[in-house]
Amino acid sequence: MRPRPAPLAAALDLRQGRVEQAHGSGGRAMTHLIETLFMAAFDPGAAPLAEDAACLERPAGRLVLSTDSHVVSPLFFPGGDIGCLAVNGTLNDLAMRGAQPLYLAASFILEEGLPLADLQRIVASMAQAARAAGVAIVTGDTKVVERGKGDGVFITTTGVGVVADGLEISASRAQPGDLILLSGALGDHGLAVLAQRENLRFETPILSDTAALHGLVAALLVTAPDGLHCLRDPTRGGLGCALNEIARQSGVGMRLREAAIPVHEPVRALCEFLGLDPLYIANEGKLLAIVAAEAAPAVLAALRAHPLGSEAMLIGEVVADEDRFVDMETLLGGRRLVDWPSGELLPRIC
Amino acid sequence: MRPRPAPLAAALDLRQGRVEQAHGSGGRAMTHLIETLFMAAFDPGAAPLAEDAACLERPAGRLVLSTDSHVVSPLFFPGGDIGCLAVNGTLNDLAMRGAQPLYLAASFILEEGLPLADLQRIVASMAQAARAAGVAIVTGDTKVVERGKGDGVFITTTGVGVVADGLEISASRAQPGDLILLSGALGDHGLAVLAQRENLRFETPILSDTAALHGLVAALLVTAPDGLHCLRDPTRGGLGCALNEIARQSGVGMRLREAAIPVHEPVRALCEFLGLDPLYIANEGKLLAIVAAEAAPAVLAALRAHPLGSEAMLIGEVVADEDRFVDMETLLGGRRLVDWPSGELLPRIC
Repeated sequence: MRPRPAPLAAALDLRQGRVEQAHGSGGRAMTHLIETLFMAAFDPGAAPLAEDAACLERPAGRLVLSTDSHVVSPLFFPGGDIGCLAVNGTLNDLAMRGAQPLYLAASFILEEGLPLADLQRIVASMAQAARAAGVAIVTGDTKVVERGKGDGVFITTTGVGVVADGLEISASRAQPGDLILLSGALGDHGLAVLAQRENLRFETPILSDTAALHGLVAALLVTAPDGLHCLRDPTRGGLGCALNEIARQSGVGMRLREAAIPVHEPVRALCEFLGLDPLYIANEGKLLAIVAAEAAPAVLAALRAHPLGSEAMLIGEVVADEDRFVDMETLLGGRRLVDWPSGELLPRIC
Repeated sequence: MRPRPAPLAAALDLRQGRVEQAHGSGGRAMTHLIETLFMAAFDPGAAPLAEDAACLERPAGRLVLSTDSHVVSPLFFPGGDIGCLAVNGTLNDLAMRGAQPLYLAASFILEEGLPLADLQRIVASMAQAARAAGVAIVTGDTKVVERGKGDGVFITTTGVGVVADGLEISASRAQPGDLILLSGALGDHGLAVLAQRENLRFETPILSDTAALHGLVAALLVTAPDGLHCLRDPTRGGLGCALNEIARQSGVGMRLREAAIPVHEPVRALCEFLGLDPLYIANEGKLLAIVAAEAAPAVLAALRAHPLGSEAMLIGEVVADEDRFVDMETLLGGRRLVDWPSGELLPRIC
């Protein structure tokens, strides 16, 4: 008598179980993890054991490709977690080129000992964020490292999108005379993560602003297809870093008005208390739009008409400046150089 | 007098320097690392400070997308390193769908303290592997984690390729009567990494077989465009895992002949010494081709005519078996079940 085929592996204990080395080594346990935890969330109808690569439709338009590793610590924070952050962050990098996101790949580096319940919660958050954005997670990978060689879970997401022919939104297209719009208040994401990490408690908790911005971008493209020169989400390094990057790439200067830059009161208060500058704190659901002056009123109106841009402001203008300085008129009427961030910024906020 | 613009950051000391937190936080130091280390290797002619997403040509064909995180330990091993492995591994996942690889994205998770010289060597190895394969690394990301929260460097590569309309190579297409071809000897990669990790020394060192297989696949597609049913590179979990995955997805069994399966003598000897089975050791430059019987002679000849397939062998056949067993006729004429790998396999070999 020949033996009966063994079941693929013992059922995962999603309440009490933890990531083990065997979950990464290519055998039964790994297959079981992929099928019962990842595929159940990302692709409930799929056949067991997907291929190592996904075959997709032929896209209409030029491709846009972006990748980001996410190492945020802690994994869960007010307003989000590493899962939705990893989805939204990569979708936003595509959206900042004017692209419509189509597909995501997700690769996980798991530390031995990670509670499977945490992993399941993170994966569910990714699946929900992807569904909300209308994007499919089509392929992935899982690796396991020993305790002390990782930190819970790192997630690398890679996005594929398409951009219409002729549309060229780029950090090198800012021109003197363009106006600078900001879709909302600064600093919520970075401080939400910091507060969670340092166990700071407030009456009004600061929530991460993590959100997928491609819907907002689509609305702007309808409003002013030719007037949008640059889009940028001010993540690591914040507004200060994003504007300096654009100034450098476009060979221009910028003049900001501090009074116009929105910062929520709890963020302002915590920044003052900790000696941080909201201009350099990471955001995960805001965008900068640098637009032709004649298009600015319509773009600002379109931003404010969208739930993710209701606090949008015109914060400054692009000027000719061979030094490529970003200057700011301060609240007191003085001027301040908004330099590149340097030295220690908040680590591991994305 | 207005201040002079500061230089972007102090020059990187590539000989003595190490990765610091500032290299990951979005400011000057990070920009400098990206430009002088990554972009200098990957895209020497590019403008400074690429966008967060790459705009690419409109591809001709269906898209294929694959992602893999690489956590191999140690970072350097006989025959390769994490850099070329990360490039070749993802190209191979695309190739196993019959795709021509076009673009790679590369995302780095760096541990604070990693010598910059090691990082530069790894990045140079990636650039060389990508150039050799005719593929561009078009976008990327860098994160830094604290000492003890990572392990030197983890690299996630994501590949985009195109596959001709009508070509359907898939692990679900094996049919009873198909023949199973293996492009070369088993176990070199896994044992090369293990030997380096455990500091084992031999007269004839075992070298990793890491290689990009899309050129070999292209040759097979010319030879037998309709006869290729499945392609699979037997990486983690080795041949045993790959064949069980295909058997399960296709709903078939397999019969192997042990005498036909090539294993280099040093690998065989070390496996015996360590009590390991070459059937479950990872390979990084080999492929399994499951082909229609009438196409098998031509495909085998095409494999052997290519430098990466010179030791190719016909190792078995696909049979009808509702239990989906992979059986093997042993050297002594007995039969053995080649089960799914279970329990502890070699960790962190890719």
